[in-house]
Amino acid sequence: MKTSVVRNSQKSGLPPGALIHIGNKKTEQIKLSKFTYNENDFEEIVFKSSKNIETSINNDIVTWINLDGIHNTKVIENIGQYFNLHGLLLEDILNTNHRPKAEYFEDHMIFSLKMLGVNETGDNIISEQVSIVLGKNYLISFQEQEGDLFEPIRDRIRTKKGKIRLKKSDYLFYALTDTIVDNYYLIIENFSERVEKLEEKVLTSPDENTLREIQELKKQLSTLRKAVYPLREAVSTILKDEEDFFHNDNSIYLRDVYDHIIHILDSLESQRDVVAGLKDLYMSELSNRMNSTMKVLTIIATIFIPLTFIAGIYGMNFDHMPELHYRWGYPAIWALMILITIGMIIYFKKKKWL
Amino acid sequence: MKTSVVRNSQKSGLPPGALIHIGNKKTEQIKLSKFTYNENDFEEIVFKSSKNIETSINNDIVTWINLDGIHNTKVIENIGQYFNLHGLLLEDILNTNHRPKAEYFEDHMIFSLKMLGVNETGDNIISEQVSIVLGKNYLISFQEQEGDLFEPIRDRIRTKKGKIRLKKSDYLFYALTDTIVDNYYLIIENFSERVEKLEEKVLTSPDENTLREIQELKKQLSTLRKAVYPLREAVSTILKDEEDFFHNDNSIYLRDVYDHIIHILDSLESQRDVVAGLKDLYMSELSNRMNSTMKVLTIIATIFIPLTFIAGIYGMNFDHMPELHYRWGYPAIWALMILITIGMIIYFKKKKWL
Amino acid sequence: MKTSVVRNSQKSGLPPGALIHIGNKKTEQIKLSKFTYNENDFEEIVFKSSKNIETSINNDIVTWINLDGIHNTKVIENIGQYFNLHGLLLEDILNTNHRPKAEYFEDHMIFSLKMLGVNETGDNIISEQVSIVLGKNYLISFQEQEGDLFEPIRDRIRTKKGKIRLKKSDYLFYALTDTIVDNYYLIIENFSERVEKLEEKVLTSPDENTLREIQELKKQLSTLRKAVYPLREAVSTILKDEEDFFHNDNSIYLRDVYDHIIHILDSLESQRDVVAGLKDLYMSELSNRMNSTMKVLTIIATIFIPLTFIAGIYGMNFDHMPELHYRWGYPAIWALMILITIGMIIYFKKKKWL
Amino acid sequence: MKTSVVRNSQKSGLPPGALIHIGNKKTEQIKLSKFTYNENDFEEIVFKSSKNIETSINNDIVTWINLDGIHNTKVIENIGQYFNLHGLLLEDILNTNHRPKAEYFEDHMIFSLKMLGVNETGDNIISEQVSIVLGKNYLISFQEQEGDLFEPIRDRIRTKKGKIRLKKSDYLFYALTDTIVDNYYLIIENFSERVEKLEEKVLTSPDENTLREIQELKKQLSTLRKAVYPLREAVSTILKDEEDFFHNDNSIYLRDVYDHIIHILDSLESQRDVVAGLKDLYMSELSNRMNSTMKVLTIIATIFIPLTFIAGIYGMNFDHMPELHYRWGYPAIWALMILITIGMIIYFKKKKWL
Amino acid sequence: MKTSVVRNSQKSGLPPGALIHIGNKKTEQIKLSKFTYNENDFEEIVFKSSKNIETSINNDIVTWINLDGIHNTKVIENIGQYFNLHGLLLEDILNTNHRPKAEYFEDHMIFSLKMLGVNETGDNIISEQVSIVLGKNYLISFQEQEGDLFEPIRDRIRTKKGKIRLKKSDYLFYALTDTIVDNYYLIIENFSERVEKLEEKVLTSPDENTLREIQELKKQLSTLRKAVYPLREAVSTILKDEEDFFHNDNSIYLRDVYDHIIHILDSLESQRDVVAGLKDLYMSELSNRMNSTMKVLTIIATIFIPLTFIAGIYGMNFDHMPELHYRWGYPAIWALMILITIGMIIYFKKKKWL
Repeated sequence: MKTSVVRNSQKSGLPPGALIHIGNKKTEQIKLSKFTYNENDFEEIVFKSSKNIETSINNDIVTWINLDGIHNTKVIENIGQYFNLHGLLLEDILNTNHRPKAEYFEDHMIFSLKMLGVNETGDNIISEQVSIVLGKNYLISFQEQEGDLFEPIRDRIRTKKGKIRLKKSDYLFYALTDTIVDNYYLIIENFSERVEKLEEKVLTSPDENTLREIQELKKQLSTLRKAVYPLREAVSTILKDEEDFFHNDNSIYLRDVYDHIIHILDSLESQRDVVAGLKDLYMSELSNRMNSTMKVLTIIATIFIPLTFIAGIYGMNFDHMPELHYRWGYPAIWALMILITIGMIIYFKKKKWL
Repeated sequence: MKTSVVRNSQKSGLPPGALIHIGNKKTEQIKLSKFTYNENDFEEIVFKSSKNIETSINNDIVTWINLDGIHNTKVIENIGQYFNLHGLLLEDILNTNHRPKAEYFEDHMIFSLKMLGVNETGDNIISEQVSIVLGKNYLISFQEQEGDLFEPIRDRIRTKKGKIRLKKSDYLFYALTDTIVDNYYLIIENFSERVEKLEEKVLTSPDENTLREIQELKKQLSTLRKAVYPLREAVSTILKDEEDFFHNDNSIYLRDVYDHIIHILDSLESQRDVVAGLKDLYMSELSNRMNSTMKVLTIIATIFIPLTFIAGIYGMNFDHMPELHYRWGYPAIWALMILITIGMIIYFKKKKWL
Repeated sequence: MKTSVVRNSQKSGLPPGALIHIGNKKTEQIKLSKFTYNENDFEEIVFKSSKNIETSINNDIVTWINLDGIHNTKVIENIGQYFNLHGLLLEDILNTNHRPKAEYFEDHMIFSLKMLGVNETGDNIISEQVSIVLGKNYLISFQEQEGDLFEPIRDRIRTKKGKIRLKKSDYLFYALTDTIVDNYYLIIENFSERVEKLEEKVLTSPDENTLREIQELKKQLSTLRKAVYPLREAVSTILKDEEDFFHNDNSIYLRDVYDHIIHILDSLESQRDVVAGLKDLYMSELSNRMNSTMKVLTIIATIFIPLTFIAGIYGMNFDHMPELHYRWGYPAIWALMILITIGMIIYFKKKKWL
Repeated sequence: MKTSVVRNSQKSGLPPGALIHIGNKKTEQIKLSKFTYNENDFEEIVFKSSKNIETSINNDIVTWINLDGIHNTKVIENIGQYFNLHGLLLEDILNTNHRPKAEYFEDHMIFSLKMLGVNETGDNIISEQVSIVLGKNYLISFQEQEGDLFEPIRDRIRTKKGKIRLKKSDYLFYALTDTIVDNYYLIIENFSERVEKLEEKVLTSPDENTLREIQELKKQLSTLRKAVYPLREAVSTILKDEEDFFHNDNSIYLRDVYDHIIHILDSLESQRDVVAGLKDLYMSELSNRMNSTMKVLTIIATIFIPLTFIAGIYGMNFDHMPELHYRWGYPAIWALMILITIGMIIYFKKKKWL
Repeated sequence: MKTSVVRNSQKSGLPPGALIHIGNKKTEQIKLSKFTYNENDFEEIVFKSSKNIETSINNDIVTWINLDGIHNTKVIENIGQYFNLHGLLLEDILNTNHRPKAEYFEDHMIFSLKMLGVNETGDNIISEQVSIVLGKNYLISFQEQEGDLFEPIRDRIRTKKGKIRLKKSDYLFYALTDTIVDNYYLIIENFSERVEKLEEKVLTSPDENTLREIQELKKQLSTLRKAVYPLREAVSTILKDEEDFFHNDNSIYLRDVYDHIIHILDSLESQRDVVAGLKDLYMSELSNRMNSTMKVLTIIATIFIPLTFIAGIYGMNFDHMPELHYRWGYPAIWALMILITIGMIIYFKKKKWL
C-alpha cells in the first residue's frame, strides 16, 4: 500500500500533464519492438531508438508495437507524438500505480491492467502494470520490464497458429488480455498453496509469527483484489462500448475474459474467507494451548497440594500426637496418600483431562 | 478451491479456443445416447461412436442427445461440428471449473450448472458439471459421468407420463434443470444434518478437531453457494431473454425453478448463520472449560493453602511455643482446620462454584 | 431450517406439476366455507364436500371461499378445476415451505404468506402458510388449519361493520393481509419480551445453556425474517402491477400494509442487533467471572504462600538458628505474619480486588 | 423497541381505518391554535374547541393550524372532516410509532417525522412524533405535547423577520422541518458527549456495568437512526414529486434540509463506529486486567515456591544431613534464598512484569 | 466528530438563510486577492477591503478571486452581492462542517471540499474547508486560512507554464481541485507510515495505550473517509451535468481527478483493513503474553510442588520412618529430586514450553 501512495505523492505539486515516471525502475534496458502481420505476411523489427518508429498503418496490416521498460519518458513521448496520443493517456502509461481501467479517446483507447507474478522466494506477489493502447489497426503495449508472458502470442503470429493472423488488432488485444488474465490462475494457485501450508502450520505448530503471516497473506490478497476487482469494471466498460474498436464477432471472446475475471474474483472471495478463518483457527489454538497449560498446572497442584498438607500435619511438633507413635503410622499415611492420588487421577480421567 | 484453480491454470499459455479437458476424468467409459420423441412416437439409441450421430432435426420431433463422460475432446468436437456449435461453447463444456451460466449464440444457447452429490463417506459434497445446449428442437446434455438423476425423465418419456411428450425441447430443458435443482434440497438436507450433529458435538464433547470440522463445513457451504448463487443469475438471464428458445407458456415453469433457487439460497444463508454460530458456541465452550478448570484449581488451592500454612506454623522449632504443649492442642488444630474448610465450602457454594 | 428442507426433498424425483402436500398435516378436519356478500345481502355456507362448490360468480357479489386444512390434494384439485387455476399455483398452495410471494396468472393471482403464532409453551414461533387466490370478484383463502385470526373479518361482513360490505374482493384481500401482518406485531412483542428476559438472565445468572438459548433466539429471528422479508417484495410486486386486480382507490390500503411490513422489518433489525449484543454480553460475563475466579486464587495464594515460607524457615533443623531460642521469637513471627497480611490486604484494596 | 411494538399490537384485530391513539398520552391539555398571515397581516387565534375551527382558505393567506396533544381522537376527526383528510392519514397522525414518511393524497400530503429530545436526567433520548399536513395554502401540524421548538418560527411570523411572511405554506413547511432537523444536531452533540464520557470510563475504571452501558448507548443510537434514516427517504420523495406542493424556488431549501439529514446520518455512522470500538476497548481492558492479575500471582508463586522448597529440605529429619550441623549453614541458606529472589526479580524486570 | 456537531448546533434556532460562520476561526487576517488573465496578459491584485472588488467580467479574461479567512460574514456577503450568489450558497461557504458537495445554481455552481493537512506534531489530521464558486469566466475560491497549496498554480499563471493561461475558468477549477486531491496522497502516506509504526509497536512492545492509539487511528481514518467519500459523489455530479460550466475538452481532466479519488478511496479501504487487523494482532499479543505468563507459573509450580511434597514427607515426625536412619537416605532423596526435575524439564521441552 504504502509504496503506491509514496509514488503518487511524488507528483503532487506538479502541473497536470507533466510526464513523469511514477514507480520503481524495474529494468535498465528498454526494448522497443514491432510486429506487422496479416494473413499472408509478417515482419518483426527491434528498434534501436524510439525516434525511428516509422510504420505505415493501413487497413490490411496489423501493427503491434511493444515497449519493455517505461521509465524513459522521452521514449513514451516520442511514441505519443507519432501516434498522436492524448497527454493524460501518456501520464497513465507512466504512472504504474493507478487502478486497472479502460478509457476512450477520439480514435484510440487505453486499457491498463496488472500483470501479476510471484517473487523469487515465492512468498510474495509482485505486480507489474501493462498498458495497451488500441487504435484502428494498431496496438501498442507497454510493460515495465521484459517478460515472456507474451512470447507464446508472438510464436502464434510467427507460426500462424490459431486464428490470430486471420484477425485484426482487436483480436490481438483480446489475446494479450486473455494471456494476462489466465496467468492470474497460476498466481492464485500459488497463493492458495501458501494458505494451505499456513493452515497446516496453525493446526500443528503455531508460534508468535503465525498471526503476522496471516496478516501478510491478507495484505497480498488485498493486492490481488486491487488488481482484479477494477478490471471487471474496465472489461465491462469495453463490453458496453465495443462498437468502435471491436468487431462484433470478437466481443464473445471478451465476454469470455470477463467470465474468467468473475471466476477469479469468486476464488479470491473464497480465499478471503479461508484466510479470515485462519485467524479464528489461530485464536482458538491459542485458547486450546492456554487451556492445556492450565490443566497441567491444575492437575499437579490438585494432586500435590493436599498431599503436602498431610505431610505438613505430621511435621507438627505437638507433644501429644498419638498417630506419630503408632507402629504402622508411617506406612498408613503413605497408603492414604496413594489412595488420594488414585482418586484424583480417576476424577481427572472422568473430566477427560488425562 | 485449490483444485479448480489448478485445473484452470493447466490452460494458461494455450491459444484461446484450444479444446482441452479441464478437470478430473471421472469415468473411463463414454456413453452417447439419443432420444427422439413426439406425442406419438419415441426412439432411443445408444451410439457406438460419436462419428455416427446422424439425426434429422425437424419441427415435429424433439431430439435429446446425452453424453456421459466429457474427457474425450474428439467426441465433443464431433458433436460440435455436427451441430455447428461455437468453439468457445465447446471450451466451456470441457472446462468443468467455470461458474454456472447461460450464454446465447446465434441459433443455440448453452446453460451450464453443477449437479451436486454427496461422497461415499457422506461427509463431503461433490460437484459435477452439466452443460445443456438448447437449439431449435434439439437438446444436448453433457455430464462428467454416467448418473441416474435423469433416469426418471427418461422413464417419463418412455411411458408418456406427464406432459413431456406433448411439449418441445424447451420443456425438456426445464425438466432437466428442475431435476438438478430439486436434487439440491437433498444435498442441503444432508448438509444441515451434519451441521446439527456437529452442533451437538460442540455442546457435549468438543475437542481440538472441532474447529477444523467447522472450517470444513464452512468450505463446503462455500462450494454449495458457488454452485447455486451464479445459477440464479443464469436462470434470470434466460427468463429475461426467453423469446427465442422458450415457448411463452413454459416460462412459468422456469420461474418456478427460479423460485426454488431463491429458496435454496435462503436456506444456505440460514445454514451460514448456523455454522457461524457454531464457532461462537465452540469458543464459548472453550472459555467455559477454562473457567471450570480454573475453579477446580482455585477451590483446591484456596482450601489447602491456608491449612498447610497452619500445619507449617506448628512445624516450627521455636523453643517457646506454648500451644505445642497443651493437652488438646493437636485436636484443637484439627477442629480449626475443619472449620476453615467448612467455611470455604460455604463460600464456594454461595459463589455457585460447587 | 432442516424441516423445510426435508419436506421439499420429498418431492425431488417427481414430475413437475404432481400435486403432493409438502409439510406437516396440522389438522384432521377439513373445513370448506363460502361467504357471498354485497352491500345489501350476505350468505354464509359450510360445504360438506368439495364437490359441491357451486357458486355463481358475478360482478355484484363478492365470493370468498375459505379452506382450513390443505393436506387433502383431492379437495385442492377440485377447487382448482372449478376455478380453472393453474397447476403450478395448486402446487404452491400445497407446498407449505416456499417463500411468501405474489404471482400473476391470466385471470387470477396468488399471494402466499406466513401466518405466525407462538407455540403453547410460549418459547417458540410457529409458522403457518396462507395462500390467497384473488380473481375477479372472488377470493379463495387456504389455511393449514382452522384458526380464528379471520373471525373478526367474518364478523365485520356479518354485521356490516366498516367498509367491507361496500367494497369488492380486492378490499377483502387487503383486509385478510392486513390482519395477518398486524398479527406480526404481537409475535414480535412476544419475541422481544423473551429477549429481554434472556438479557436479564445473562446479566444476573448466566449458565452453560445461555449461549444455546441465544442461538435459539437467533434461529427464531431468522424464521421471522424469512416470513417477513420476502413479503415486502411480494407486496411491492402487487403495488407495481395493481392495474388488473386492485381498484385504484384501494391501492392506498395496500401501501399502508407495505409501510407496516417495513416497520416490522425495522423492528426485526433492531432485535437482531440486540440478540447479537447478548452474545457479547455473555462472553464478557464469562470473562468477568474468570477474572473474579483468578482474583480469589491470587489473593489467597499471595497472602499465604509467603506466610507458609516463613513458617517453613523456622521449621528447619539447623543446629545454629538463634531466633528459635529467643524468648519472644514465636510471638514476633506471628506479628510479622500479621503485618504481611495487612500489607497484602492494603495492596489488594488499592488494586480494587477487595 | 418493545414499547413501539406493544403499542402497535393494541390495534391488531381492529378494522382498518378505526381511529385509535397508539402511544403514550404525553399531555393532559390539548391546545389548538391558528395562525393566518400574508405579507401585510397576520392573526393568531387559540381555539377553545375543535368544533370552532372555521377558517377561510384562500390563495392570499397562509393558514397554519397547530395541535398540541393528539390523544383525543375526536379532535383529530373534526379537523379531518373540516379539511377533508383521508382516513388512513388520520390513522397515521394518531399512531405515534410508525416510521417517518411522506405520503401524497389528492390535494394534500402528509409528512411525519420524529422530534427528538433528551430526558430530564440527560441520559436517554426521547422521541415525539410530529405530523405535518400540507395542502394548498394551509398547513396543519400535530405534536404529541406542547413544546417550544416552533416558537422561534411563530416569532418570525409575528415580527415579520426573515422571508416567512413573503412566502406561502410550502416555505412554512420547510421552516418547521428545518427547525426539527437542526435540533437533531443538539441531540447528537449530547449523545456524543456521553459516548466520550463512557470511553473515558472504559479506559480508567471499567466495572461490570460498563458493557451494559455500552449496550444502552447502542440502543439509543438505534433509536436515533430509526428517526433519521427513513427521513432521508421521505424528504427525497418530496424532492422528487415536488411539483404540486412546492414552489420551484423553494425546492432548494428542501435540498438543504436533505443535505443536513445526510450529514447527520454520517455523524451517526461515526458514532456507531465509536460505540462499537468501545466494546473492543472494554474487552481488551478485561484481558489486560486478567493479565495483570496473573502476573501478580505468577511473581509471588515463582519467588516463594522455590524458597519454600529449600526451607522444606532443611526441615527434613534425616539422621545424616551434614549441612544442618555447619556453623554457617543457616546464614548460608538465607544468602542462597536472597540470591534466588534477586535473580527472579531481575528475570521479571527483563520480562517487563515489574 | 463532536466538534462538527457542536458547531452545527450553534445554528439551530436561527432562521434559515442567516449568515453565520460555523467553525473555528483559524486566522486573524483576511486576505482577498484577484487574478485576471488570458493568453496574453495577467494581473494580480490584493484588495484592501472587500468593498473594492470591482472587476469586469468578460469572455476573454478569466477572473479568479481568492479569499483566505471566512470568519467575517460581511466580506462573504459583499462578495455574494457583487456576484449575485444565492443565500444558501453563502451559508454553505460559511459553514465549515458540511460534506463535500457540488450544487448548481442558475448561472454559477459551488463545489466544496476538504483540504487536508497534518498537524505540527505529525500525529493528527487537520481538515480545512475550501469552497469554489464557478461562474461563466470567473472563479471564487474560499479558504479558511492562508495556505500555500495554490501557490504553484499562481506561479503557473504568472510564468505561463503549462496550459493554464490558454484555458478558461473551468480549467482553473480543475487545476485547483487536482492540487487538493493530489495532496491527499501525501496525507495518506503520512497516515500509512504511522500505521506501520504502530504495527511494529504492537508486535514488539504493546502496552495499555496501544489499543487507544489504534482507536485514534480509526477515528482519523474516519475523518479521511468523510472528506473523500462524498467527494466522489460530488465530482461524479459534475461529470454528469458538465454541459454548462465545463468545456467538453476539459471533462477528461475531471475524469482524471475522479480516477484519483477512486484510487484514494481504495487506499483508504486498504488502510481500514490494516488498522482492523492491528486490533486482532494486539488482542492475540495479549493472549500470547497471558499464555507465556501461565507457562512460567506452570513450570515453576509443576517442578517445585512435587519436590516440596517430598521434603514435607521426610519432615514428618513419625517414630518409625526407617529411611530417615539410612546412611545414604539424604543423598538418595537429592538424587530422586534431581531426577524428577530432569524429567519435568524433558516433558516441558517436548511440550515446547522451554
